Amino acid sequence: MEELKRSVWEANMDLPRYGMVTFTWGNVSGIDRESGYIVIKPSGVPYEELRPDQMVVVDMDGHVVEGGLRPSSDTPTHAALYRAFAEIGGIVHTHSPWATSWAQAGRAVPALGTTHADYYYGEVPCTRPMTKEEINGDYELETGHVIIETFEQRGIDPNQVPGVLVYSHAPFCWGKDPHHAVHNAVVLEEVAKMALHTFQLNADVQPMDRSLLDRHYLRKHGKNAYYGQK
Amino acid sequence: MEELKRSVWEANMDLPRYGMVTFTWGNVSGIDRESGYIVIKPSGVPYEELRPDQMVVVDMDGHVVEGGLRPSSDTPTHAALYRAFAEIGGIVHTHSPWATSWAQAGRAVPALGTTHADYYYGEVPCTRPMTKEEINGDYELETGHVIIETFEQRGIDPNQVPGVLVYSHAPFCWGKDPHHAVHNAVVLEEVAKMALHTFQLNADVQPMDRSLLDRHYLRKHGKNAYYGQK
Amino acid sequence: MEELKRSVWEANMDLPRYGMVTFTWGNVSGIDRESGYIVIKPSGVPYEELRPDQMVVVDMDGHVVEGGLRPSSDTPTHAALYRAFAEIGGIVHTHSPWATSWAQAGRAVPALGTTHADYYYGEVPCTRPMTKEEINGDYELETGHVIIETFEQRGIDPNQVPGVLVYSHAPFCWGKDPHHAVHNAVVLEEVAKMALHTFQLNADVQPMDRSLLDRHYLRKHGKNAYYGQK
Amino acid sequence: MEELKRSVWEANMDLPRYGMVTFTWGNVSGIDRESGYIVIKPSGVPYEELRPDQMVVVDMDGHVVEGGLRPSSDTPTHAALYRAFAEIGGIVHTHSPWATSWAQAGRAVPALGTTHADYYYGEVPCTRPMTKEEINGDYELETGHVIIETFEQRGIDPNQVPGVLVYSHAPFCWGKDPHHAVHNAVVLEEVAKMALHTFQLNADVQPMDRSLLDRHYLRKHGKNAYYGQK
Repeated sequence: MEELKRSVWEANMDLPRYGMVTFTWGNVSGIDRESGYIVIKPSGVPYEELRPDQMVVVDMDGHVVEGGLRPSSDTPTHAALYRAFAEIGGIVHTHSPWATSWAQAGRAVPALGTTHADYYYGEVPCTRPMTKEEINGDYELETGHVIIETFEQRGIDPNQVPGVLVYSHAPFCWGKDPHHAVHNAVVLEEVAKMALHTFQLNADVQPMDRSLLDRHYLRKHGKNAYYGQK
Repeated sequence: MEELKRSVWEANMDLPRYGMVTFTWGNVSGIDRESGYIVIKPSGVPYEELRPDQMVVVDMDGHVVEGGLRPSSDTPTHAALYRAFAEIGGIVHTHSPWATSWAQAGRAVPALGTTHADYYYGEVPCTRPMTKEEINGDYELETGHVIIETFEQRGIDPNQVPGVLVYSHAPFCWGKDPHHAVHNAVVLEEVAKMALHTFQLNADVQPMDRSLLDRHYLRKHGKNAYYGQK
Repeated sequence: MEELKRSVWEANMDLPRYGMVTFTWGNVSGIDRESGYIVIKPSGVPYEELRPDQMVVVDMDGHVVEGGLRPSSDTPTHAALYRAFAEIGGIVHTHSPWATSWAQAGRAVPALGTTHADYYYGEVPCTRPMTKEEINGDYELETGHVIIETFEQRGIDPNQVPGVLVYSHAPFCWGKDPHHAVHNAVVLEEVAKMALHTFQLNADVQPMDRSLLDRHYLRKHGKNAYYGQK
Repeated sequence: MEELKRSVWEANMDLPRYGMVTFTWGNVSGIDRESGYIVIKPSGVPYEELRPDQMVVVDMDGHVVEGGLRPSSDTPTHAALYRAFAEIGGIVHTHSPWATSWAQAGRAVPALGTTHADYYYGEVPCTRPMTKEEINGDYELETGHVIIETFEQRGIDPNQVPGVLVYSHAPFCWGKDPHHAVHNAVVLEEVAKMALHTFQLNADVQPMDRSLLDRHYLRKHGKNAYYGQK
C-alpha cells in the first residue's frame, strides 16, 4: 500500500511536469486489485505542497479507509470505472486544454495518424450530454456511469481505447497502473492538438486507413508487439 | 498595511510566473477595507526589479497616500471597481493573450464547459465600446465606469463573475484578495484559449447546460460547496 | 564603441531569452550616430557561443571597419535603414513565427487593441513583393529600399511605427537603441499572435477606434505621456 | 565508430532539448559511409536514460552488428534511405506536432517564405498513402520505399529538400550528419507551424516567388553561398 501511495503521488506530480494541469485541475488514482483499495489525490491540494503520505485510501465504493484529508471530489467516478473496467490499475482526470476543447465541442477525437494508433485503437469517444437528473443526482458517480455506457453501447474495449472525453467537461484516461494512465493522458493531449490542426489543414480529412491503424497499434500491443526492448 | 503590501507584491510577481505578462503589461492591487487604502504596483517598473516596499498606497479616490513612485496608470480603474464592488479585495489587469484576443474581437467568453463553470457563473462579458468623450476624458476612470455599467445593466453579480473584457483592450479580474484575483485571471486566460479552440472544432457550439453550470459552480462556491478540504 | 558593442551583444542575447529566434535566425545592430559606425552581430554564429568582442563594426555603407568575423548577411539592410531613418539607434531582424506568418500572408498587422496602440501608432505595414531585379541584384540593400519606400509612399513615420513586415520574408523592427528595438520586436510578435486569434473570433473585426489609438499611443509617447516613472 | 556513436547520441538528446519529442517518439541515426555501418537509437528507451554506449550498430541491411539492445523499430526505413540517398549522413524521425499535422492532412508544406527557402529548395512533399500490401508486408522497409519513390517520381533532389512527410504518419528528415538532420527537422517543424498560420491569414496564399526561393536557398547553399563565416 505504501508503494502504491508513492506511485500515485509520483504520477500526480507528473501532471504539472508534463504541462497537463493548471492549479489543482487534475487527479490520479491507483488500485490494489487484491485488497480492492484505491489510492487517490486529496481534494484541492496544490501540487507544490503535495506529499506521498497525503494520498487518501478509499474502498471500491469510494468510502475513506485511511488518510486525514478528503479524497478528490471525483473519487466516485474513479471508483465506478475501477468496478466496471476490471483490468485497469490507474486512472487520471485532467482539464488539459486540447483534449478539453474537444470535450467542450462534443466531438470524439478520430484516429488521424500513427501517433494516435500507437496508443488508442480507434477514436477516443465523447460521451452523450448528461441528463438533468444525472447532474442533479449523484453527479460524480453518474459521470462514471455515462463513461461506462459509452464503452458498452458502442462496443469499445477500454483496454484498447484507454481514454474518453466527458461532454462539456474534460478527459478521463486510464492504464495498467497510475504512470501508464498519465502516459495515455499525455498522448491524448498531443493527438487532440494535432487533430485540431489537421482539420484546419484539411477540413475533409477522413479517419486513417484501417490497416495502418492495426499495424501501428499491434506493433506496440498484444502478443506480436515488436516495439521497445524484449 | 505591510502585510497587504507583501501580498500585493507577491500577487504581482505571480503574473510572470504564470506566463500572464510580457514586459510590464499588468498590475495587481489589493484593498484594506477598514482604512479604505488601496495598495498597487508602481507604473512601468519591470517585474524583475520589483520590490515589496515599492508598492504604492492610494486612497479610494486614487490619490497617493504613501510611496515614492507613481502608481499604475490604471489606478483610477481599480479604485472605481473597489468603490462599486463592495465585496472584492483584489484586482488584476493584464494583457494576457487569449483573453485579450476575445476583448479585441468584442466577444464575451461563453461558458462552454466545467472548467469555466468552476470559477465563473456564466459568460465573462465584454463591455460596449467606450465613447469618444469617455476616451478623451478621464479615460482610466471611465474604463472603470463602463465595466460597472456592464455588470449593472446586465444584472451580473461581480462576485459570481469575477472578471470582464474591456472592448478593444484587455481583461480585468478580481477576487476576495490579490491572490484570488490572479487565480481568476489565470482561469480566464485558460478558458479563453479553450473556448477559441472549441469554436474551431464546432462553430455552432452552444453555452453549456444550465444544470451543469449550476452543479460545478456550486460545488466550489457557497454554503453547499464540497470541493477541497473542509 | 565598447559600450555599444556590449549593448548590441546584450540585445542579441535577449532574442533567445524572449523566444524570438530559432538557431541563428536573427540579428541586432546599433549605431553610434556621431562616428556613423554601426555594430552588428557576426553572420551565422550560434547565440550560445556569441561573445561581445565578436560584434562587428561597419561604416554606414556596410564596409567592415573592425572585427575578425563577417558581419550579418543582412548588414546592407540595416545600413540602409540607418541612412534613411535618422532618429533610430537600433535595428533587429528576426523570423519570429507569428510576425513571419503575417509577412508570408502578405498582410499588414492592423491595430486591433490597446496592446498594439501602446507601441505602434497604426498598422504595421507589409512591403510590396520585391521585383525579380531587386531580388537578383543587391538583394539585402534592396530589402532596405523596399522598406523605406513603404514608409515614404504611405506617409508613415518610422518613429511612430517602429517595425515592418517584408513580404514573403519576416519582420524588421527598430528603436532608439538596440534594446528598444528588441522590445518593439517582442511587442510585434505578441500583437501579431493576438491579431490572428482576434480574426479567428471575429472575421469582420475592424481596426480599433481612432480616439482609443491616440489615447494609448500618446499616454506612452510624446510630451504628454503619463505612463511609467517621471 | 565511437565518435559516430557519440554524435548520434548527442543528436538524439537534442530532440527533447528542441521540444521535438514527447516520450520516445523519435530517433536519430548516422552512417559511416566507409564501413557502411549505421548507428541508431535503441527502440523505446526514454531519452532521460539514454547513454552513448547504448547506441546500436547495424549494417546497411539493418542487421545488428553491435549492441545489446534492439535498434529502433524504424531501422529498415533509415537503412533504405541511406541506400538510396548516397550523400546523406544522418536521418531523424520524429512525431513533432506541426509537421505531423501536415502529414495527417496529407498535404505538402509549400515554400511560403524565406525561412523555408533558407533550408528547403521547394515544397516538402507528402508521400502517397501506403497500400494495404505495403502496410501488412515489411512495413518499415516499405515506408522507406514510398519515400524514395516520392523523390524519384517527382524529380526532387533529396540533398536540396532534406525532409518528407509520410502520409498519415509523420516526418523524416536528413542531412550530411546526425546534427544536420536534427537541424533540418527543427526547421521543418518551424516552417510547418508558420505555414498553417499563413493559410489561416490568407487562404489563397501562393508559393513564394521563384527568384526569392533561389536567392535565399543559394545564399546558404552551393558554391556561391555567402551566409555564415568563411
